Amino acid sequence: MSNNNNLKTIAILGGTGKEGKGLAYRWARAGYRVLIGSRTPQKALDAAAELSQKLDNESHIEGLDNPTAAMQADIVVLTVPYAAHRATLESLKDALQGKLLIDVTVPLVPPKVRKVQMPPAGSATQEAQEILGENVEVCAAFQNISHEHLLQDASVTCDVLVSGTSPEARDETIKLVEAAGLSGWDAGPIENSVVIEGLTSVLIGINKKYGSTHAGIKITGVNKQSAD
Amino acid sequence: MSNNNNLKTIAILGGTGKEGKGLAYRWARAGYRVLIGSRTPQKALDAAAELSQKLDNESHIEGLDNPTAAMQADIVVLTVPYAAHRATLESLKDALQGKLLIDVTVPLVPPKVRKVQMPPAGSATQEAQEILGENVEVCAAFQNISHEHLLQDASVTCDVLVSGTSPEARDETIKLVEAAGLSGWDAGPIENSVVIEGLTSVLIGINKKYGSTHAGIKITGVNKQSAD
Repeated sequence: MSNNNNLKTIAILGGTGKEGKGLAYRWARAGYRVLIGSRTPQKALDAAAELSQKLDNESHIEGLDNPTAAMQADIVVLTVPYAAHRATLESLKDALQGKLLIDVTVPLVPPKVRKVQMPPAGSATQEAQEILGENVEVCAAFQNISHEHLLQDASVTCDVLVSGTSPEARDETIKLVEAAGLSGWDAGPIENSVVIEGLTSVLIGINKKYGSTHAGIKITGVNKQSAD
Repeated sequence: MSNNNNLKTIAILGGTGKEGKGLAYRWARAGYRVLIGSRTPQKALDAAAELSQKLDNESHIEGLDNPTAAMQADIVVLTVPYAAHRATLESLKDALQGKLLIDVTVPLVPPKVRKVQMPPAGSATQEAQEILGENVEVCAAFQNISHEHLLQDASVTCDVLVSGTSPEARDETIKLVEAAGLSGWDAGPIENSVVIEGLTSVLIGINKKYGSTHAGIKITGVNKQSAD
């Protein structure tokens, strides 16, 4: 299931939204085989065609229904609205066993999207882990990135914090963050996902208060070159 | 209770620790009347004398026991270890009524200080609010700053996120952040304190993983001059 660069296959479920399309574009550009999943296969086909054209048809992007995309992938990325989070995961539980799930979901509770309001599991990412069971590695990532940035080629001035079930899963996720042209940081165990998801509400509030449109964060005081 | 600049009086409880002393130094330097509180009054006197000397005895810094400091202040800052958080607040509940409490406490649970582990109230700041009642405004601030930085005059490359019970309390706290020479951001309602407190565990983990000693964060993508 890898392309000729031995890169893995990534499925992006709910991949026809702006965030999903942005990630698909960046990973396809980096040479990964990308499967865009949707509840509506025609939408997935359209998104795949649009992105293929943007990449001069030299990339590998397919549009599929969500279950087929999940089944064929090595790594599955979830970019559905929080309202569809539980139902999507429950329906794909079997297809996801043994894989890495990267959960991009932010559990916003409208209309008070500037207030951190986590589900009983502690965060959407922990909720995903509860639903999928211990045979699925789950990481949180990309919650704080403005989706407008992902479909552009310019560099993004927001770092990506990555929490998750194991150091290995976090390293694998950080590799994909870097492949997308972003700077990723190991933010620790899955219990820390509340910080990453909650930071989105903080940034939405900062945008409202300070009249900005794409507040983000950068980690300071660390020379990453010295990382192991 | 104000000095001749009409600046307010700030009590720093647990103010003989490194973080408390650093904040005391910076606010005294900015002209505030600063009361260092301690369970051991002699320690408070010693810290006040040390900081006064560092400021050429031109500042107003006093050392007192915690209750007297709290009673005499307009704004009270809590910098005790989390283990002393509840007992300190319960013993000072009366003295704090009608005032603003700035809670610097991070609810770390040793030995797993890199894992976010919040108290049942949701965060230490919300716990303080529960203990003190609705007649006390409570804000979270300064949780992510390396205390070594505060006693130096150099600029600090870490922003200060401020959450709290009202926009007015957050504005008042941000004013003190700026007086200390740091950059403060309104991070929203008190429920968002979990993000600020939890970020400390994330930064401790980043220091461990990447070999740094004072990881911090900066908000990006916002031109603060346009703030209202």
